Amino acid sequence: MNAKRVSTYGTRMDAVRRGLERSDAAVAVFGLSTNLRYLAGFTDEPGERALLLVVPGSGEPTMVVPALYADQVAAVRPPAAIRSWADGEDPMAIVREIAAGLAGSAGRVLVDDTLWAMFVLPVREAFPDRSFGLTSEVMTPLRTCKTEDEIGAMRRAGGIADLALDEALAEPVAGCTELEIAGRLEAAMLGHGAEGVAFETLVASGPNSALPHHRAGTRRIEDGDIVILDYGCRVDGYCSDISRTVVCGHPSAEMERVHDAVYRAHWAARERVAIGVRAEEIDAAARDVLTAAGYGDRFVHRTGHGIGLDVHEPPYIVAGNGEELKGGMAFSIEPGAYFGGDFGVRIEDVVTVGENGAVPMTEAPQALRRVM
Amino acid sequence: MNAKRVSTYGTRMDAVRRGLERSDAAVAVFGLSTNLRYLAGFTDEPGERALLLVVPGSGEPTMVVPALYADQVAAVRPPAAIRSWADGEDPMAIVREIAAGLAGSAGRVLVDDTLWAMFVLPVREAFPDRSFGLTSEVMTPLRTCKTEDEIGAMRRAGGIADLALDEALAEPVAGCTELEIAGRLEAAMLGHGAEGVAFETLVASGPNSALPHHRAGTRRIEDGDIVILDYGCRVDGYCSDISRTVVCGHPSAEMERVHDAVYRAHWAARERVAIGVRAEEIDAAARDVLTAAGYGDRFVHRTGHGIGLDVHEPPYIVAGNGEELKGGMAFSIEPGAYFGGDFGVRIEDVVTVGENGAVPMTEAPQALRRVM
Repeated sequence: MNAKRVSTYGTRMDAVRRGLERSDAAVAVFGLSTNLRYLAGFTDEPGERALLLVVPGSGEPTMVVPALYADQVAAVRPPAAIRSWADGEDPMAIVREIAAGLAGSAGRVLVDDTLWAMFVLPVREAFPDRSFGLTSEVMTPLRTCKTEDEIGAMRRAGGIADLALDEALAEPVAGCTELEIAGRLEAAMLGHGAEGVAFETLVASGPNSALPHHRAGTRRIEDGDIVILDYGCRVDGYCSDISRTVVCGHPSAEMERVHDAVYRAHWAARERVAIGVRAEEIDAAARDVLTAAGYGDRFVHRTGHGIGLDVHEPPYIVAGNGEELKGGMAFSIEPGAYFGGDFGVRIEDVVTVGENGAVPMTEAPQALRRVM
Repeated sequence: MNAKRVSTYGTRMDAVRRGLERSDAAVAVFGLSTNLRYLAGFTDEPGERALLLVVPGSGEPTMVVPALYADQVAAVRPPAAIRSWADGEDPMAIVREIAAGLAGSAGRVLVDDTLWAMFVLPVREAFPDRSFGLTSEVMTPLRTCKTEDEIGAMRRAGGIADLALDEALAEPVAGCTELEIAGRLEAAMLGHGAEGVAFETLVASGPNSALPHHRAGTRRIEDGDIVILDYGCRVDGYCSDISRTVVCGHPSAEMERVHDAVYRAHWAARERVAIGVRAEEIDAAARDVLTAAGYGDRFVHRTGHGIGLDVHEPPYIVAGNGEELKGGMAFSIEPGAYFGGDFGVRIEDVVTVGENGAVPMTEAPQALRRVM
């Protein structure tokens, strides 16, 4: 842990305290989330053991830590006091004690957006007379525009995703299950130094490609199938997210037509990206192309989502979001078209908003690649 | 989707309704959790799009579904009405409408234990005058004792984990990063038909093995290192979870001593398993062995956790849990000993409680395996 990192976390914690003051909030309670990573350099998959970061508007932050995590948490030197509890003890006793110490101060309680209900309810009981809100009020403004360091990590995560595509497709895919291909992508990313996957890899083949959120299953890929690969990894906590549509053998004329329309939609959106443009305009740029091509009703989802430490975070690139793009924002552009029972196409890259428009985090070729 | 599955979900939904009545609850609200899979045959990673199952004590259940999931949810024929909402619309309007329909009925609102705060707070607003509780009140009694079908899925998930160990260790590990070995294990499990990993694979080498919750990092494994592999996969939603400790090259005499003590602790716990024994007695059986060996203070966590659709669920095998074991309960037995800065050892298998004691779900040899 070098001095720069420690000071980064201290600075962020100060920004949270100022945010609490502006939001008339007395305290924020974070769980095992990306906010915890952002503020203290530590996170893990959420679980049933309470691991909380309690940040009062004034006074020292406290981390409530299961004993078996205590060494790992101490090693990152978080800008907070550490109070550990052992299996069999009640972690909420520590929270109630902190709440008692704040009894004199007015203001709301903000809870982490992804904090599990099993912790939200006892936190509410610990602060019985307070109004509640979500920490995103304070955190979104801090996290939305990425710094150069953050963009660097996202680009490394994107570069690993690019490499994994070639590795996974170097061997034949025909006759493999979707899960085997997902396994190849994930192993390739870990082999190149990703610290984990950003989300469970989607490999959707044949008719499954018409289901936008199909994960990967035991279906075997056949000659003539379209296959959507949608995957990503994490580097220093930051996510990549890429979708490519490939075809096993030769595409039909219709597959080529749809792929071309989605490709043009992707680029219409990407070329619209600039500081000051509204998020909904990016969505409309992609949607207009697909509508003109006759596929408007086949594009059943938004054009994109923000990304950073979370694979989905603000800003959302969706109709009705009038938020103006700022430099350093990062989001996916992922138009698609889906023909139930038959096939689907999606082309996705993450971009950041630079001075001269969109800067891509992944660069694998988008053309309808023919694989064995 | 065959008739048996549909009828299973209908039966489970009826059991939830009876549970709500017994708990004086008017309604349960589930999110994208294993409870949703248990009750409706569908789940996915939780995300920022609200996908909820609202089950009133009387009346028809409703699934609130993002439009892009609608086809996938309809395909599993859940025992609930489906109401979809498109990106840009407010899903909570549907919840408020359901709440208005329940205005005449008294009773609490139960929310899914893992429901994110971003949904818990608006659900509270939709039911402003109600007390809140957690759905585990109703779900834990239903889910804790596994049926033969559920144990069958857990055994298949365990068998795949056993196979993955041999595959991952067939090639040299010396010089590989922890993440590469994690990638091998995960790809092997997906290749054998697992539908996903049960949790992010832990590969803890050298001094990292002394951190019980170390994931996998870029450390390269060296000759003489102990390596703890802790991983598992999912089959039909059900999890496996196994830990093995191997050594790269030759173990030190101390490593062998500690491994032997942990091995004996594991078996003392396993042999104590029987219907009617208290969970804390299983914990004590393992702890007594390690204490007698002089490692009591090195065993810093509970002996185990229940497992099923969730990788951690009741019953917890921990001091203070007086719950009596019942037939069909499933839990891990995973004593460990950790020597900060040096090394750690853990040996874990999941067992179910059978008529004649513990029945293991994984069977890979436990001996301190020497790998290249």
